[in-house]
Amino acid sequence: MHSIQTVVDLPMGEAEAAVRSALGDQGFGVVSEIDVAANLRAALGVERAPLKILGACSPSFAQDALGIDPSIALLMPCNVVLEPDGTRTTVAVIDPRDLVTSPALEQLAVDAADRLAAALAALGGQVSEVAA
Amino acid sequence: MHSIQTVVDLPMGEAEAAVRSALGDQGFGVVSEIDVAANLRAALGVERAPLKILGACSPSFAQDALGIDPSIALLMPCNVVLEPDGTRTTVAVIDPRDLVTSPALEQLAVDAADRLAAALAALGGQVSEVAA
Repeated sequence: MHSIQTVVDLPMGEAEAAVRSALGDQGFGVVSEIDVAANLRAALGVERAPLKILGACSPSFAQDALGIDPSIALLMPCNVVLEPDGTRTTVAVIDPRDLVTSPALEQLAVDAADRLAAALAALGGQVSEVAA
Repeated sequence: MHSIQTVVDLPMGEAEAAVRSALGDQGFGVVSEIDVAANLRAALGVERAPLKILGACSPSFAQDALGIDPSIALLMPCNVVLEPDGTRTTVAVIDPRDLVTSPALEQLAVDAADRLAAALAALGGQVSEVAA
C-alpha cells in the first residue's frame, strides 16, 4: 500500500479547508467525512490525537471506473487522511493505483493519482510517495 | 480483491435499514454514507441504477488497528455496497483481509471479516465470498 503525502504549514482546520479547495481544483469533491477521533471518543470514551478522513471522489473518474468495473465501489472513494504534526498538518492520500485490481482501470488510476498529487503539490509543501 | 456478499429479499431502502441493524448487532457502526447515484446525477447529470456505499466501522477494531498500524486510516472504513437486484438488494462488503498489508493486523482483519459475514448471514440469505 502506498500513499501520496505532504505536510501543510497550517493547523488542521485551516489545512482541511485548503485541502478541500485544492481537491476541488483538480475535479475531486469530498463525498464523505469521518472524524475518527470524535467517533472513538463517543463510542469508547478514549482520547487520541485528531484524525480525520475525507473521502475524495472525482465524479467523472467514478462514472468511468464504475462503467469498466462496478466492483470498484468496494474501494471508493480515495481516503485523504489529515493528522496534526505539531503546528502543521500531515495530509496523506491513498494512491488510487493501490485500489484497482482490474488492468482495465489502471490508466484511470494513474490519471487520478496524478491529479491527487497535483492537489497536494498546490498546498505548497513537498509531495512524496510513501510505502505504508 | 474479495467481497463478502449476500442478496436480501427486500427493496433497497428496507434492506439498508436491515443491514444497519445487523451491522450494529456485530459492533459495527455506519460512519459514512455515499449515495453514488445521487452524487453522479448532481455532478454529471447522468442517471444510473441506485448505488449506495455505507462505511462500516467497529470502534474497538478501529482503535486496536490504529494502535498497531496508523496507516490503516488510508483504507478505513469497510465499504458496504448496496445495489438493487430486481425487487431484492445485493449487499457486498469489502473483505477486511484485503485491506491490511501489515501482518500484525491480520488477526484483527480475520475477526472483522467473521463479524461482517455474521451480519450478512443474519439478513437471511446465503453468504458467499466473491473474488472481484
